[in-house]
Amino acid sequence: NLGVASGSRGKKLPLVDHKGRMNVEMTGFPKGFLYYNDLFHTLVNLKNWRFTALLFAVYFLLFVVFAIPFYIDARHNRCIPGVRSFLHAIWFSVQSALTIGFGGEMVPNPDCKMSNFLVALEGVITLLVNYSLLGVVYARFSRPAKRAGTLRFSRNMVLYEEDGVPCLALRVGNIRKHQIIEAHVRMLVAINRPYAAEDESVFRFTTLPVLGGGQVFLGLPAIVAHPITPSSPLYGLTFEMMEQCDMEILVLLEGVDASTSAKLQARASYRPSDIKLNCCFSTMVTRQPSGRRAVDFRSFDAVVPVTPSAMRRPLRSLAFPDASSPSPNGRGR
Amino acid sequence: NLGVASGSRGKKLPLVDHKGRMNVEMTGFPKGFLYYNDLFHTLVNLKNWRFTALLFAVYFLLFVVFAIPFYIDARHNRCIPGVRSFLHAIWFSVQSALTIGFGGEMVPNPDCKMSNFLVALEGVITLLVNYSLLGVVYARFSRPAKRAGTLRFSRNMVLYEEDGVPCLALRVGNIRKHQIIEAHVRMLVAINRPYAAEDESVFRFTTLPVLGGGQVFLGLPAIVAHPITPSSPLYGLTFEMMEQCDMEILVLLEGVDASTSAKLQARASYRPSDIKLNCCFSTMVTRQPSGRRAVDFRSFDAVVPVTPSAMRRPLRSLAFPDASSPSPNGRGR
Amino acid sequence: NLGVASGSRGKKLPLVDHKGRMNVEMTGFPKGFLYYNDLFHTLVNLKNWRFTALLFAVYFLLFVVFAIPFYIDARHNRCIPGVRSFLHAIWFSVQSALTIGFGGEMVPNPDCKMSNFLVALEGVITLLVNYSLLGVVYARFSRPAKRAGTLRFSRNMVLYEEDGVPCLALRVGNIRKHQIIEAHVRMLVAINRPYAAEDESVFRFTTLPVLGGGQVFLGLPAIVAHPITPSSPLYGLTFEMMEQCDMEILVLLEGVDASTSAKLQARASYRPSDIKLNCCFSTMVTRQPSGRRAVDFRSFDAVVPVTPSAMRRPLRSLAFPDASSPSPNGRGR
Amino acid sequence: NLGVASGSRGKKLPLVDHKGRMNVEMTGFPKGFLYYNDLFHTLVNLKNWRFTALLFAVYFLLFVVFAIPFYIDARHNRCIPGVRSFLHAIWFSVQSALTIGFGGEMVPNPDCKMSNFLVALEGVITLLVNYSLLGVVYARFSRPAKRAGTLRFSRNMVLYEEDGVPCLALRVGNIRKHQIIEAHVRMLVAINRPYAAEDESVFRFTTLPVLGGGQVFLGLPAIVAHPITPSSPLYGLTFEMMEQCDMEILVLLEGVDASTSAKLQARASYRPSDIKLNCCFSTMVTRQPSGRRAVDFRSFDAVVPVTPSAMRRPLRSLAFPDASSPSPNGRGR
Ligand SMILES: [K+]
Ligand SMILES: [K+]
Repeated sequence: NLGVASGSRGKKLPLVDHKGRMNVEMTGFPKGFLYYNDLFHTLVNLKNWRFTALLFAVYFLLFVVFAIPFYIDARHNRCIPGVRSFLHAIWFSVQSALTIGFGGEMVPNPDCKMSNFLVALEGVITLLVNYSLLGVVYARFSRPAKRAGTLRFSRNMVLYEEDGVPCLALRVGNIRKHQIIEAHVRMLVAINRPYAAEDESVFRFTTLPVLGGGQVFLGLPAIVAHPITPSSPLYGLTFEMMEQCDMEILVLLEGVDASTSAKLQARASYRPSDIKLNCCFSTMVTRQPSGRRAVDFRSFDAVVPVTPSAMRRPLRSLAFPDASSPSPNGRGR
Repeated sequence: NLGVASGSRGKKLPLVDHKGRMNVEMTGFPKGFLYYNDLFHTLVNLKNWRFTALLFAVYFLLFVVFAIPFYIDARHNRCIPGVRSFLHAIWFSVQSALTIGFGGEMVPNPDCKMSNFLVALEGVITLLVNYSLLGVVYARFSRPAKRAGTLRFSRNMVLYEEDGVPCLALRVGNIRKHQIIEAHVRMLVAINRPYAAEDESVFRFTTLPVLGGGQVFLGLPAIVAHPITPSSPLYGLTFEMMEQCDMEILVLLEGVDASTSAKLQARASYRPSDIKLNCCFSTMVTRQPSGRRAVDFRSFDAVVPVTPSAMRRPLRSLAFPDASSPSPNGRGR
Repeated sequence: NLGVASGSRGKKLPLVDHKGRMNVEMTGFPKGFLYYNDLFHTLVNLKNWRFTALLFAVYFLLFVVFAIPFYIDARHNRCIPGVRSFLHAIWFSVQSALTIGFGGEMVPNPDCKMSNFLVALEGVITLLVNYSLLGVVYARFSRPAKRAGTLRFSRNMVLYEEDGVPCLALRVGNIRKHQIIEAHVRMLVAINRPYAAEDESVFRFTTLPVLGGGQVFLGLPAIVAHPITPSSPLYGLTFEMMEQCDMEILVLLEGVDASTSAKLQARASYRPSDIKLNCCFSTMVTRQPSGRRAVDFRSFDAVVPVTPSAMRRPLRSLAFPDASSPSPNGRGR
Repeated sequence: NLGVASGSRGKKLPLVDHKGRMNVEMTGFPKGFLYYNDLFHTLVNLKNWRFTALLFAVYFLLFVVFAIPFYIDARHNRCIPGVRSFLHAIWFSVQSALTIGFGGEMVPNPDCKMSNFLVALEGVITLLVNYSLLGVVYARFSRPAKRAGTLRFSRNMVLYEEDGVPCLALRVGNIRKHQIIEAHVRMLVAINRPYAAEDESVFRFTTLPVLGGGQVFLGLPAIVAHPITPSSPLYGLTFEMMEQCDMEILVLLEGVDASTSAKLQARASYRPSDIKLNCCFSTMVTRQPSGRRAVDFRSFDAVVPVTPSAMRRPLRSLAFPDASSPSPNGRGR
């Protein structure tokens, strides 16, 4: 029931590119207003050079804005000795805001209430600016998206038969030593379905249940499989039909980084042409002479051809999938 | 089995306003005590101008409180040259707390143990104040509630028949590019039920199960539907009955912001008069010539009328909802 | 099948006191070693006055430790003018660590490599100390435990019959306006069971399933009920038997604070004598003239007596519990 | 159906060592590139001495790099009086970066635009460096892995018969007073299964369902049991077969620290030789004269032999496991 198809009509980019970013253009809402309201997340997601430029601009503005009253005060009341030009006032403002206070000639007159108040005000406002920017820098630097980049998905999916049931599987792995807590995989199929009027269609995601409920332990690379049972949305589909309805399989690997408790999501998407028929992933986990287990990521994407009869089950019960998960297939268990 | 009703008796505000805030007044508990005990969350949830005023007041107080012993010390022991008035003492206190230390005339006498100890004490206490306020500023600035404001709910719910089962649906969307992890929708119905004595009634929330278990992927706008099967609390209700028991449907969209790992909740509530009968949401997702998918949020709230027979299912299995979710309807699957 | 019992043998403190703290003494493990290894959590959970004392001690130590080489350097090489005693050296160390640098007489000689290196070293080490303490202060100040204190449990549980099934219920509420995300309640029964030999017994917690799967929306106070069906561990027990096996019901209310994303857990525990038979909680939610809903927490603990027949169900389906939750009772649904 | 086996062929280290670290070697991916891309997590997971060295190196570099233009400026334009050598320039750079500004001779000439701009630039860049390092120090210091070290697993698993069903159990405990929220245990069995070709084998984890769905309350030590029913992957296996297929049972205890909301995972792994047949864990929880419960961790690992008939159930229903969990065994309930 699985024919092989080929060719795609028109240019169709996948939902998710190879870096896990969405290939989606969004329009039709007032960007400015909403972005300003959610300033923090806008700053956190700015490009690096833009954020750096913004950060320097903020401090520059702070220095210059406070230099104005310092300059006026110095010209009229001679409150800050040594400030004879606006550049001097900026220099004094820098010393106050950064709390350097070199002293020397530029020590404000203790009798000038206004200039002393301005120094205090600039100090407190700078603290406020520091606190806000510190939070943004921290959130940017610790962004879990970068951690998600150390999670790997196999380049292809494989489709093999196990006990007479076709299984659509991929391999996921974590190339960092520290763990992902509560890691779980969600497999979704995205399809276009004609609907209502002739020219309207619904784009809808449907979850594909995976063996073991999707929970994985990423201490070692794991294989995640969806059994194509009669209740599966993929049951009875040929590769041509998959191409025709613009099918795409989206895989989400979600979990929590053990060192920072940050929640992360890695994404991959597979087109029908990315599915390798009658193949399985090759062995990656071996024993070293020292007794430790070894994982070789060079075999991560490697597949080996299998015939249905090759999937032997010498230890009957050990081969069974997780019994506690809702049995998604009608294999008579 | 779904009659259309109109008109509401008396003024009834919805549970949740258009900004997602609760329309609920709470009384009868000792606010002061509990709020003081949970000072951090009180500070985080203060209005902006109140928090700013408080922050300046805290630093002002710090400057002034330490100015007192400095002034006494300067008057009696001439320990801080240049401090001849209380304003001078405040100015010295500002220089110490903000660690500016301009120097000049105002350099404490190294032989005065008390004033030197006071400077050290003020420095450490200011650090403590800084740390505490920094945490509050960070928590305020990164508040996930603002992120939740970039999540959108359709203005109306729609009620259409699919395969003979009436479905109550809404559309949810994320207008930011960065993702919401583990997004899921909960639909609750709030009703008033007469109970025990004649004048007592119970206000109770009951969960409405949604297709696919409520898990959504917000990379693209998603439609969330509750099938009104015989086991649904809404089964057999007319619009009049809904109005009569003051029914309100509360929708909670919960998830984790991918860039900061903050958990967020967006809320919307629908009255019976917000439900559009025999309508569906119109198409929002199209392909651009470049091959990327495009989402036009101008069609977000748009609905198109449908007749029950128009919900065709050309690809039988693809139309089926998630098979792994507990089948909430008796459609014979 | 529910007789009323009275009296408890011997003094028995509940598992959880009225502030939600565990009444449990733990012995038999090397505290020191483990606590040192997990220094951060030890510091976060220190009592307030101990932590404040420790914080001042750390900075004092820092000032004094660096004063030693400054003093030696000043005595032998006259590198820091004005440092003529150890107290002067401490004062200089304070100015360096807090980055005040008043200047005046105490400006280190630029030709003294060692003293200049020491100033730089003290500055960087102080930064490190600041960073570490800042994290602890932040974690202490934002501790979700304090937020959990604004969650309320009813003083008593009630036991009433609904449709012939006895239900054991309590009320939970949130007295703050900002929400708890993904709030859910777990009910556990703690019992002592004789086991193996005559003098050995097992203390075991068993989960009591609650209607609706335990998920609550705390925008308004919620009633959480466990139906005592034949599969319930409480089925067929009299109050005397509950007392005899030292029964205690532990209720955990877990969720995420919406303003800080902190996970929190509030706890309450109920003894058999805390259960009020044939009672229900009284009405708390009403409509104000303005149309807003009003919650009066003075009625939070109030109960009203009910007779089994009083639990009327005028709208059949609205009274049904959440249909999506696993049906824990055998009411023939 | 449970024979006792002995001896292991070849050296085989367990998956997880006694400190919870994975005994796994990973190769075959470009470490450098990925680690640099995820710099934050690389810094958070560096060894302590390496991180400290790096931190000092970063500040040293910062001081020296800015000393270069200061030195040039001082030599050519006499902009910073007192800077007569490169060491003087470093010393001036230290005073600017740490914002000490002792003053004295080394006060930059206010008319030198370049040197004043450099001081401002160094100040802002140092702030940026501070913010970044502060985040790393905080993340390192609060690492939940250390908290996970205060969670304990029993040294052995026990295998006893209860109501005719063999149960494989372990004990978990929390030796800190503050709680773990939403604690849950996952039990996985790791096996090697011959597959496809003669020399290929699949290493696969299968979840072992535990009574009560794995949710535990760690206020007191808890026993977690997997019933070996016909649907269990372990059903019908002898100890020899377990050894033969290199079986290992991995136990993951996951939850959230109540004081910091950090998610944590503690790990333990058991080989067939770690399973004690016909034993149960001995009593740990008693009542003190004061009425408080007492937990003695010296009995944490202690087991007592039991005979199948000794598992009496005097209170029928109290002995039943959680009724709401999916019944994993076919005991006819
Ligand atoms: K200074
Ligand atoms: K300074």
